[in-house]
Formats: sequence, C-alpha cells, structure tokens
Amino acid sequence: MTDDLIAALTAALGPGGLKQGDAIPARNRADALGYPATVPRALCLPADTEGVAAVLRLCHAAGAPVVVQGGMTGLAGGAHPGAGEIALSLDRLRGVEEVDTASATLTALAGTPLAEVQAAAEAAGMLCGIDLGARGSCTIGGNVATNAGGNQVLRYGMTRRNVLGLEVVQPDGTVVRNLNKMLKNNAGYDWTQLFIGSEGTLGVITRVVIGLHPRPEGIETALIAVPDMDAALALLRGLERGFGGGLLTFEGMWGDFLGIAIAHLGRPEPFALRPELAVLVEVATGPGGGGQDRLAEGLAGLMEDGTVTDARIARSGQERAALWSYRESPYDYGRLGRRMANFDVSVPRDRIGAAVAALRDLAARDWPPALQGIFGHVADSNLHVIVALGAGDPEVSAVEAAVYDVIAGFDGSISAEHGIGRSKRAYLPLSRSAPELALMRQMKAALDPRGILNPGRVLA
Amino acid sequence: MTDDLIAALTAALGPGGLKQGDAIPARNRADALGYPATVPRALCLPADTEGVAAVLRLCHAAGAPVVVQGGMTGLAGGAHPGAGEIALSLDRLRGVEEVDTASATLTALAGTPLAEVQAAAEAAGMLCGIDLGARGSCTIGGNVATNAGGNQVLRYGMTRRNVLGLEVVQPDGTVVRNLNKMLKNNAGYDWTQLFIGSEGTLGVITRVVIGLHPRPEGIETALIAVPDMDAALALLRGLERGFGGGLLTFEGMWGDFLGIAIAHLGRPEPFALRPELAVLVEVATGPGGGGQDRLAEGLAGLMEDGTVTDARIARSGQERAALWSYRESPYDYGRLGRRMANFDVSVPRDRIGAAVAALRDLAARDWPPALQGIFGHVADSNLHVIVALGAGDPEVSAVEAAVYDVIAGFDGSISAEHGIGRSKRAYLPLSRSAPELALMRQMKAALDPRGILNPGRVLA
Repeated sequence: MTDDLIAALTAALGPGGLKQGDAIPARNRADALGYPATVPRALCLPADTEGVAAVLRLCHAAGAPVVVQGGMTGLAGGAHPGAGEIALSLDRLRGVEEVDTASATLTALAGTPLAEVQAAAEAAGMLCGIDLGARGSCTIGGNVATNAGGNQVLRYGMTRRNVLGLEVVQPDGTVVRNLNKMLKNNAGYDWTQLFIGSEGTLGVITRVVIGLHPRPEGIETALIAVPDMDAALALLRGLERGFGGGLLTFEGMWGDFLGIAIAHLGRPEPFALRPELAVLVEVATGPGGGGQDRLAEGLAGLMEDGTVTDARIARSGQERAALWSYRESPYDYGRLGRRMANFDVSVPRDRIGAAVAALRDLAARDWPPALQGIFGHVADSNLHVIVALGAGDPEVSAVEAAVYDVIAGFDGSISAEHGIGRSKRAYLPLSRSAPELALMRQMKAALDPRGILNPGRVLA
Repeated sequence: MTDDLIAALTAALGPGGLKQGDAIPARNRADALGYPATVPRALCLPADTEGVAAVLRLCHAAGAPVVVQGGMTGLAGGAHPGAGEIALSLDRLRGVEEVDTASATLTALAGTPLAEVQAAAEAAGMLCGIDLGARGSCTIGGNVATNAGGNQVLRYGMTRRNVLGLEVVQPDGTVVRNLNKMLKNNAGYDWTQLFIGSEGTLGVITRVVIGLHPRPEGIETALIAVPDMDAALALLRGLERGFGGGLLTFEGMWGDFLGIAIAHLGRPEPFALRPELAVLVEVATGPGGGGQDRLAEGLAGLMEDGTVTDARIARSGQERAALWSYRESPYDYGRLGRRMANFDVSVPRDRIGAAVAALRDLAARDWPPALQGIFGHVADSNLHVIVALGAGDPEVSAVEAAVYDVIAGFDGSISAEHGIGRSKRAYLPLSRSAPELALMRQMKAALDPRGILNPGRVLA
C-alpha cells in the first residue's frame, strides 16, 4: 500500500517533485533541535497550493503520516521527520506576490524566507513586524505555523498579531482561503486563528497576508544597568511613558549571563561594576531627531531616583553592535564544549524576579559545576535559560524536568515562543490543565480526524 | 420536559436566579438592533462561573436552546431572545478582580461594563485599549465574544488583540480556564482564539484577562480636509511617519455625511469650502509637550503639496468636542424620522475610494430621495453607511441586499466590527467562500455538537 502511495504521489507531483532515500537532502532529515538525522519515507516538494492539496488528499486516503517542513529552524523537533513519515516541504512555494502600500499589506507564499519578506517590505518603504535570529532560513509559513516571537514583540506583537489572511490546505486536501487585507473583518468565525501557532498539526499553511508597519525614522540603542527586576519594570514604565508606542526592544541580561559572556566568551565588561541586571533598550524616534537627547534626559531622571545605576547610549553603528554583542553571545555557547540544556519559558512579569532567584538556587544546589545564564525578552515575560553542564552534573533530561517544575510553580509557561513540537510534549501538562488539553484534543480530532498531520507533535 | 428543566434550573440557581414571564425585565427581551421584544422561556441569572456551568449542563442534557446575554448593545440581533430559548445573562458576574500593574493586565468577570474596566485601568495609571460608544452598557465579555472594534483599533487593535486569557464554559458545562498574563505563551494551541469573536455560539465567556497600555501623556485633535481618498491615505502615511505608534484615531467623513450633519442636524460648516472628505485625527503626544506644534508643522508640509486643503487643530477641550460632534452626529439620525438602513462594512484601503463612488451611484439611481451618509474608521478599512430612506424609496431589505452586493464586488466584508448575529446570516456567503463556511460549521459541530448555544446566530 505504501508503494502505491509513493507511485501516486510521484505521478501527482511530476518530475523533481518527490525524492526518496539518498536523494533526500540532509536539511530535510533533521531540524535545528539536534535529534539524530532521520530519512523520511519520501520527501514531497509540491510547486503550488494544488500540489500540496494533492499530497494531502492522497496521504489522507492512505492514512499515511505527514510531517510538514519549512526552513527547518525550529527548536522543538516539530519538523524533524520520523522514519515512516512523508515529509512535505514548502520550499518550492516561494516568493512575495504583492506589497500593497495603500492597504499596508504583503502577500507571500508560505515557503518564502522571512528575510525576503522583510526586504520586500523595506523596498516599499515599510516594515515587517516579524523578526527573529533565524530570519535568513526560517520561512513566513513556519513563522505563522509556530506563532514565532522574537525581539520586537513588545512593539509589534507575536506573529499572530501580524497575520491578516491565510490560505490553508486541510488534511483531506480541501483548500480554505481568506486573503483578507482588512484590520476589521468580523464576518463569521476567524478560522485563521486555528492554524496560527498550531505547529502544522491542523492544516498546512500555503499563503500568508501580513500587515505592514511604518518604518521608524531612527532607532536609538542603550544598555542600562539596574539593581533588580523591580527596577527594570520601573524603567520599562518610564520608557513607555516617554516613548509611547516607540519602545521597540527591552531585553534583560542577568549578571550570571554577562559573566559567561565576559569570562568565557571574551567580551569586555560593559560597566565599571557588573550589574545584577542589564537591559538592552531600543526606541524608535521621529523625523525631528533629538531621540538621543530625550533618551539621555529620561535616563538621567531615572538615575537620580536609583532606578538606573549606569547606562551607555550608542553613539554610532559600531557602538550599537557592541551593545548587542552581549545579547547575541548565546550564539557562541557552542564554543564552551559542554552538554547544553536550553530553555524558552515565560513567567508573569511580577514574578520574574522571584523565578530567577529560584532558578539560581536550583543551579547552586543541583548542578553547581554548570555555567547557567539567564536572559530574555523580559517585557514579554519571556526568559531564556542556558545551562552549560559540567562534569558530574545531572543528565539534560533531569535538568529539564527540574527547571520546568520551577517555572510551573510561578504559573509560567514551558514554551514562550518556540512551541511544543516533539521535545516538550511530555511537559505540556505542567502549563495546561486537563480541560485545556481535552479541548486541544477536541480541536485536533475535529480538524484532522485521521490524525495524519504532524502526528505526535504538540499532543500525544 | 421543559417544566422539568425549569425546575432543575430554579433549584440550581437559588432565589432570584431564574425569572419567567412578566418578571423578565424589558432589557432582556430585545437587543439594540430593534427586533420586536420577545419573552424568552426563562431568564437565568447565575451568580458565578459554577452557576453558568450548571445552567449549561442542564440545558445540554435537555437539548434546550440557550441565548447568551451581556449588555444587550449588539447591533446584529445575536443576543435577541427567541420565544423558546433559555436566556443566560452574565449580569451578576460583575467586577474587576485585579489590576496587575507589573504585568500590565486586568482581570474582570464577563458581565463587567466596559466603562468599569476602563475606569479601573485608569485608576491604576494605565489604559484599556478597548473603547466604543456603548462603553457604559456593553460588557467586557460581550466585547470579547463579538471581537468588538471602535475608534482606536488603528492603535490598539480589535478586542482580540487585547485579550491575554479567558475562562470559558463549554456547552456541556465544562469550565476551561487559562488566565494567562504573558505576552508570549506558545504552550500548545491558543484555544482562547476560538471563542473570541464567535458571538457566543461555541462557549460562554465568564472571565477575561486583558493587556493594558501606558496612558498617553496628552492627545491632540484635528479635523483635516482632503480632496479624495488617495490624499487621505497619503495623510495617513505622513502622520504614521511623524507620530509612529502615536496615531490613535483616523476617522473619515465624506461630504454627503457632513452635508446631513450641517443641513439636517444643525451643525455649522467646519470649513469655508465643504470638502470631499474630512478626516478626524487624534495623536498621542509625549511628556515633553509640543505635540500641537509638531502636528501643525506636519500639516503645513502636507498643505504645500496639496495632500491637505484645510485643517483645524483643537486648541481647547471645547474645540475638541466641537470637532468630534460631526463624527458623533449619527446618534441624532433618529431625529430625521425616516426609515433607516445601517451598515458596518469593510473594504480594502486601496479600494475604499472606488467603493464610496459606487455606493453614491447606487443611491443616486435606486433611492434618490434618501439621505445617505458615509463615514467610518477608514484606516481600519471600516465604512459605516447610513441611509435615511425617503418616500418612494425601496424597502430596507432591498437596500441591504444592494449595498452588500456592491461591497462584495470590492472584496469587502459585510461586517467589519458588529458581527453577524441573526441579522446578517443570510448575507454571510457574500463575504465567505463555501470551504470557509464548511470549516466554520466543522468548528461549531465539534464544540457544540448538540447545537444548543445561540442557535441560528452566525450559522444556520
């Protein structure tokens, strides 16, 4: 029966549309999480929406499991293929189809890399509100399927908030399309919300309409030292008062994290005294200029009352890059040559300070030889924790269980922006109640009754 | 069997929890659309979430239809009861439970009037991003259930964008709760999206967590005359460049609309020459002041190139109210003593100019004695059309069919912000394709398999 399916898929997709065995490229055998490479049963490369529909129609009829693949940059194992699965890649559905400056919208095929979407928006004098480190490889379809986050969520929201319209292929091959360009459209259920962030388990996104934003005229960057998380929240409120909707970025880095960047990764001390917490801030400024002065004035006021203990404002592109280099130091953790445990969690803002203290206590008690760094998009509630384990430290799985347990104790989420995929499925009940999980299963059963799409991802 | 159900509901709800016949207040017999008052089979007034769950559990078991009622301000007939229906009012679930300034969130029971939510946010020095004319009567639960819009959607988005967490009772009485306070939470499907904007047909919202915003330090208001919709879009881009995230309001009023306000409702001419289109603009300004000068400078530049032909900036609260009075003149249309047809439609921004021209041609041809005014939240794609029909003009239903047909021709939506309810159900296929409607029915069947919740609303 599988051979019949392969033959039917080959016929439907035409030359170059299906690959098997050694012909399947390495990039389709593993995603960025790092599971051992696995060769799927076949790799389908449809050229258009109708091709995607044909693949799903055939797999649905055969009851064959399908794994959906975008840019393969996911960190939860969602796109990592199983040996018996049909991999469905969106690589050939690539291209920005339209930038509509009057409506401030952009329409793209799902397999378009995010960087291409951003470039098309910029070429039209506008801005795409979705941005993350993997921009060169990740695809807009994958961003929508996983409701991707990033560094500018405070200003532009998660990917969900940027989506206006979708074209989706349902598991049985039905194409549903609403390429809406309007901010207001309450004509019946907004079914697109079902597919955003459901990690490819309910349908395959083939086309996306996103809303664009005006481009800020200028951006000012500062690295700001504060005594604790309460002070960081006071700083946040001060910047929101002073810059309103212009506050773009508010990234926290705790002293332990700075310590790793400085002692192990070769960066210089940013301040005379290592702070408990440093915040990297970016604000958009208007066409009149003077943003740097306004920022300096605002920070001076906050230093007087002790909210801020020190600050550096970037005076050039080079200085800006230097300030960002601390935030980007996790890209170099691989150089430490240790076993790594990585976390993408969220905690309500009022409990972040206590959660960080608890995570430090845990590390000091249970994995003292480890290097542990905590940083993240703190205005969005999002913490990233990196643990570089030392000799004698516990297994990665034991570290995961212990950290997720602490996060659950603070009403936090085991996934802020990376999703659940395969790797966090077992921990989902820590963040979701039994009725919530039952409702999710209800949704899955209704929309993918044969369970062919991304099986074992998100839900068991 | 119905008597048994009434007895069981009475027992479950306790004294004052159920009313019948003459004891049912007038406000529970009709919503704001204007259908003839209808006495429901009974009115249930549960005091808490458990009470709501008890009502639904009993009605589900009995297969009895339930109509959900909030502030009764809806304009689509969704909360208007049917004679055989059990009305479920959220009136007793009232109160703001928490304002968390660190997390910038507010938690309220569903029956809390929007104005109470706004006041609680303001008392804490913050701002609720949801605002609409019915604020004194409408409830936050109703706002969420209908994904309400309003005048500040451009800045703060529809209600959906402001919701962080929900508690919902499913039709069988299951309580699902995720009182999330975090901007980032990708732990499994965001099931709350299902209930936002589904007009009470999939579940009953009992508790809401919304995200709050910083309060603008000051607001500047201007009424600006432009030669056409293209110029209005150029003005919008200019203001977005100059004020970034500070642009709050961008309300268009066409000359015909101004003419009714001036000739029939007794307002003065705002400009020496009646413009083709006037735009009411509000921008938030920072703590430094100078917003009025920046606005004046920006408009001067736009007058030089002909984008703007005239402008009035409010110099006092009184002048601000005078500028708003044009936008608020529809509240007085009742004084015209005519048959009224009211529309809440949306059209992609690049096609609004053509759609307005087509609607004028239609009126001139098919209902020449009518007074027709077009205005709306044009930056959000939203147009409101008011037709005060004259003697010899067609029936309201014929006007509706003709207008919706024009809107469909411009890829528009038959409902921008008011929803479908009962009154627009028949027109839904003009804005939604067959696969979309099938998917909506799939959702309804999965979540309310016995079809007891708000039957006949949104879907047949």
